[in-house]
Amino acid sequence: MIDQPGDLPHVTIRDVAQAAGVSIGTVSKALNGGAIGAETRERIRGVAEALNYRPNAMAQGLHRTRTMTIGLITSDSFGRFTNPIVEALEARLSALGIGVFMCIATDDPEREKAHIRQLLGKRVDGIVVTGRRADKRPPIGPLPRGIPVIYVFAQADDPGAFSLVPDDEGGARAAVAHLAAQGRREIAHVTGPMSFEAVRLRLRGYGQALEAAGLKQRDDFTLPGDWSEAWGREAIARLFAPGRVAPDAIFCGNDQIARGVSDGLRERGLSVPRDVSIVGFDNWDVMVQASRPPLSSVDMNLKAMGHEAGSRLLSAIQGDAQSGVIRMPCTLIVRESSQTQVS
Amino acid sequence: MIDQPGDLPHVTIRDVAQAAGVSIGTVSKALNGGAIGAETRERIRGVAEALNYRPNAMAQGLHRTRTMTIGLITSDSFGRFTNPIVEALEARLSALGIGVFMCIATDDPEREKAHIRQLLGKRVDGIVVTGRRADKRPPIGPLPRGIPVIYVFAQADDPGAFSLVPDDEGGARAAVAHLAAQGRREIAHVTGPMSFEAVRLRLRGYGQALEAAGLKQRDDFTLPGDWSEAWGREAIARLFAPGRVAPDAIFCGNDQIARGVSDGLRERGLSVPRDVSIVGFDNWDVMVQASRPPLSSVDMNLKAMGHEAGSRLLSAIQGDAQSGVIRMPCTLIVRESSQTQVS
Repeated sequence: MIDQPGDLPHVTIRDVAQAAGVSIGTVSKALNGGAIGAETRERIRGVAEALNYRPNAMAQGLHRTRTMTIGLITSDSFGRFTNPIVEALEARLSALGIGVFMCIATDDPEREKAHIRQLLGKRVDGIVVTGRRADKRPPIGPLPRGIPVIYVFAQADDPGAFSLVPDDEGGARAAVAHLAAQGRREIAHVTGPMSFEAVRLRLRGYGQALEAAGLKQRDDFTLPGDWSEAWGREAIARLFAPGRVAPDAIFCGNDQIARGVSDGLRERGLSVPRDVSIVGFDNWDVMVQASRPPLSSVDMNLKAMGHEAGSRLLSAIQGDAQSGVIRMPCTLIVRESSQTQVS
Repeated sequence: MIDQPGDLPHVTIRDVAQAAGVSIGTVSKALNGGAIGAETRERIRGVAEALNYRPNAMAQGLHRTRTMTIGLITSDSFGRFTNPIVEALEARLSALGIGVFMCIATDDPEREKAHIRQLLGKRVDGIVVTGRRADKRPPIGPLPRGIPVIYVFAQADDPGAFSLVPDDEGGARAAVAHLAAQGRREIAHVTGPMSFEAVRLRLRGYGQALEAAGLKQRDDFTLPGDWSEAWGREAIARLFAPGRVAPDAIFCGNDQIARGVSDGLRERGLSVPRDVSIVGFDNWDVMVQASRPPLSSVDMNLKAMGHEAGSRLLSAIQGDAQSGVIRMPCTLIVRESSQTQVS
């Protein structure tokens, strides 16, 4: 691809959004088959047509002035959380002929800087930064004007930055509301280290759901620890120590903890879900399927997040840059470990 | 980067290799700090200096005529096996200023073709193809002359192709030789589906090691199945059925099976490693650490494979294209599950 001067003004997605009186995200959904009411979809499509905006205009506009490449920087190794995000992002962009340069910085600021210099040398149209956890990180260094950056499963410590992260609080609320709806009254929370924002947000969601269900939040029912199965087993030993009120349900901060909790209960002769219901977090296929019984878990919809990141970056490259933190909804997946009412 | 005609002849790594009477790989090791004897290293460095070849000449040569980009195609999602390969490959190439375009084809031949067209449009200097298993696959379509392709953790069904894959047979031999050296005499093999080349090669290595140790290979001690923990537990029920010779060691086709085997033994009241020693395959951190006790396992050295792929691709771009299948060595990591002789 060779740069050509003389990009003509054309109708952008922002123009369609303004004319239709909706957000850019809603226009994107209407034109790309996202979840949106049929009536709204038809109305927005009508506006787009009237303005002579076509779904492909964005990519066609890009073709005229861009290198059709973007950079993807992971601030850590590729892993369980990054993979689905990156796959969906790559699918979204490669469908438009946009190439994705991958850069792995493994938490090394110097290496990250070198990557950014390299990406700028290749004149990328935009940069996506992903992390291994959604906590705040320093923003990547200053970029030439007009090169947008989006943080996904990562947040920059910069009010002007734009981040997509999972709605941990909402996911936790859904999990605990489900346990309460199944008739559980003594719901404990075994989770990871409090230094993680996700841990603090999930704890808050847990408290909110207990309150909404009219249940008391016991101090000794919140057990922060680490993200391991061993901690899950250890937490069971503590929760079922003699002389304590025993829980009848446990919401776990991740699936590894939940698997340890499940093993710990079985090894004490307790039945899941009859005696104790369990819900995990992450919906990690290996863990949820290998647990006995299969584990209910909160799915962070990472593929949807990657797809959305692609759409947002395209909008930003078109000049519709945004700032702030968008928390994308999680989905509770119910399996045998919390299904006490068989229909 | 802009193409410039008039690339001058210069000393290549092949010239150094010929002058020194060693392989190109050995020159690369000598110049890049790989594992090689000090004397050989010094001799090769001397030859390189005499020929006025400098370690950076390769990259500098590339700079003059190349786009300094390569394409990376995964024939499946990024996952456990691909991640370390891709990370090491990216580290190897980005250190030379070479950008890596990532393309995910998810086993869809049409999508793979579209990716290749896109990469050729971006004038990549070479292409790396990775898979989720090392079995043979159709070669990627014909490329313009001079654009090399390397398959990593994948093999093309084409005698002219070049592939890097793990030495499954050697890894299995090391595992079983270790169990025999610990005094085990009844060593069973619980593994995955025979449709995988890796399963057939590991089975062969198991047989070779038994023979080398003077042990009998029992027909009913080889249990192919699937790659799951559930299969590992099920296999224990079969191996310890009444009236059969019971194994005193089990070599497992992967770590998930090994974990299931370990759980199955514990739930029958058998102790690992006292009653039965276990070795897995993959050295997957999550599995080996969560198993009780921690699991001995064969590591496929995937980072080394990714690094080597980067070096080989650079050589191929320089005109030193190779063909054939290179099987890279695996390493046995011994942990508590097979450590019966405490020193």
